[in-house]
Amino acid sequence: MNSSIIAGSLLRQLRGQFLSNVAAGPVLFGQSPVILYGISLGGSRLLSTAAAESSKTSSSDQTAAKSSKPSSTGKFKVEKEVASYWGVEPNKLVKDDGTEWKWTSFRPWHAYTANTSVDLDKHHDPATFGDRMMRLTVKALRWPTDIFFQRRYGCRAMMLETVAAVPGMVAGLHLHLRSLRRFEHTGGWIRALLEEAENERMHLMTFMEVSDPRWYERALVFTVQGIFFNAYLLAYILSPRLAHRMVGYLEEEAVHSYTEYLKDLDSGKIENVPAPAIAIDYWRLAPDATLRDVVVAVRADEAHHRDVNHFASDIYYNGLALKEVPAPLDYH
Amino acid sequence: MNSSIIAGSLLRQLRGQFLSNVAAGPVLFGQSPVILYGISLGGSRLLSTAAAESSKTSSSDQTAAKSSKPSSTGKFKVEKEVASYWGVEPNKLVKDDGTEWKWTSFRPWHAYTANTSVDLDKHHDPATFGDRMMRLTVKALRWPTDIFFQRRYGCRAMMLETVAAVPGMVAGLHLHLRSLRRFEHTGGWIRALLEEAENERMHLMTFMEVSDPRWYERALVFTVQGIFFNAYLLAYILSPRLAHRMVGYLEEEAVHSYTEYLKDLDSGKIENVPAPAIAIDYWRLAPDATLRDVVVAVRADEAHHRDVNHFASDIYYNGLALKEVPAPLDYH
Repeated sequence: MNSSIIAGSLLRQLRGQFLSNVAAGPVLFGQSPVILYGISLGGSRLLSTAAAESSKTSSSDQTAAKSSKPSSTGKFKVEKEVASYWGVEPNKLVKDDGTEWKWTSFRPWHAYTANTSVDLDKHHDPATFGDRMMRLTVKALRWPTDIFFQRRYGCRAMMLETVAAVPGMVAGLHLHLRSLRRFEHTGGWIRALLEEAENERMHLMTFMEVSDPRWYERALVFTVQGIFFNAYLLAYILSPRLAHRMVGYLEEEAVHSYTEYLKDLDSGKIENVPAPAIAIDYWRLAPDATLRDVVVAVRADEAHHRDVNHFASDIYYNGLALKEVPAPLDYH
Repeated sequence: MNSSIIAGSLLRQLRGQFLSNVAAGPVLFGQSPVILYGISLGGSRLLSTAAAESSKTSSSDQTAAKSSKPSSTGKFKVEKEVASYWGVEPNKLVKDDGTEWKWTSFRPWHAYTANTSVDLDKHHDPATFGDRMMRLTVKALRWPTDIFFQRRYGCRAMMLETVAAVPGMVAGLHLHLRSLRRFEHTGGWIRALLEEAENERMHLMTFMEVSDPRWYERALVFTVQGIFFNAYLLAYILSPRLAHRMVGYLEEEAVHSYTEYLKDLDSGKIENVPAPAIAIDYWRLAPDATLRDVVVAVRADEAHHRDVNHFASDIYYNGLALKEVPAPLDYH
């Protein structure tokens, strides 16, 4: 870690401390402030934080370590790790091989092995006019997408996962608020759909390691999110049955796209690089796993999401409410 | 399970099957449709579902069991449990005492023991004008709330948990969408805040067992949710620091209210009934636990949320982004 970054951060902390001490006239539980090190024991302060390996993306990552109470003299030794009065310190975890667990957005017990025996060929045959409209919509959306990405599947995966992670969150939000205001149980569907959203986001975090978005691709993602989030939220309020059906069809297309990705990896058109570390830990892959293994796992996830969303739509289709049918929570 | 309910449900299924068969002209993978039982093998159909113990709230609970492929003859035996082509069957789980796990919104591994050693007396001393405004807002909101509920703490808990479960979901949604469009890691904060929202919702599910909302209380909850959700979303977009600070202060008030609840339980003013089954399983309480034990656990949860939200606010206060500081994920 660059020492100037550390120094800059510490100074930033101290300045923040000093200003807040001056402004607030802290209550100190009977102890004198030690302002030199920017330590205040009144109220809550995030004291100087240490640069520690917590998240692999940011070079200015810092962590508040050791949530311990201040000593009775009111002094802290300013070491690399300093307590925060409110800090809730995540425990240090280690992997099976003894190395430290690097990831903050998921813990070891969130990792799993993808069910690669899932049937990839299942397709939903539209049963109603609404189903046909949804499938037509998805097929229509595929057309400009194919033109834009061509066979750049790494880029395609990265950008489309930013879209794929939206429906689960929208549905989860909607069901959560509805459960609260109606005083109703949910059958586990909030959790299932939020898991789907988080899983798709992990796909994104993974593919970010193999593809970098250009500035116009970032702009496109921003724009598409603004449109899609609102459109899907409206659709979900008006007809959750069709919304889930559409997502089911989208996932069918995703399974197809990942199959094409695998073809290009196998033929050598796309370089089969080593699997990113985050993917190895998230899907419990072998240490020498490659991008191909990752895509196989991701495709299995998409097939599972396909099943879940078609299932949810079927529940509505049969005149039931989601809460009347237990959600599939045991996938991982 | 009332047999007329089963019959009515089956008829509803068959009617749905028949109409969809007529409408869609199903593709049957080479097999003939057997319409008598409403069985179609084309596309996806939720076939007749069995009444099974899956969720304790609805008397018309049904579940789609056994996700098995259709047989090659195209016929299903219509039994109590019939396969859904898309159904992803949750595994049957048992508790430690051998009885079946009843809950669909959480699984045994989501249950935990509340950290009742948490410091209940911690308060945040406002350090800035914004902090003071947030604390003033919370204190001002407390005034009409106290007038409305008086010392009816069961009702208070039930209704206020419908409010308390909103901020975590709003924040989680916001951070999730931001992570997607910026291609950024999150430090685990999406998960931490969604956990908070789900935890508060479980508080609601629990207190629903000891208090029933009247029609005007339901109307009030609807109205408050509409206002609070939008207000908090706007606040979170404009200033996540102040939003988290306000939630921290709200949780401080919640800890105080639950302490008052305990006083009334201990003095006998409120009957100390046996703990609801959902609470015993969610907080891993003793089988003979009472409402008092539940309130102690809930209060510990609120204290933890207080810490997490004040911590999140402090992170912003110190000029950092949430993603730079690992979220507290190990609570349970």
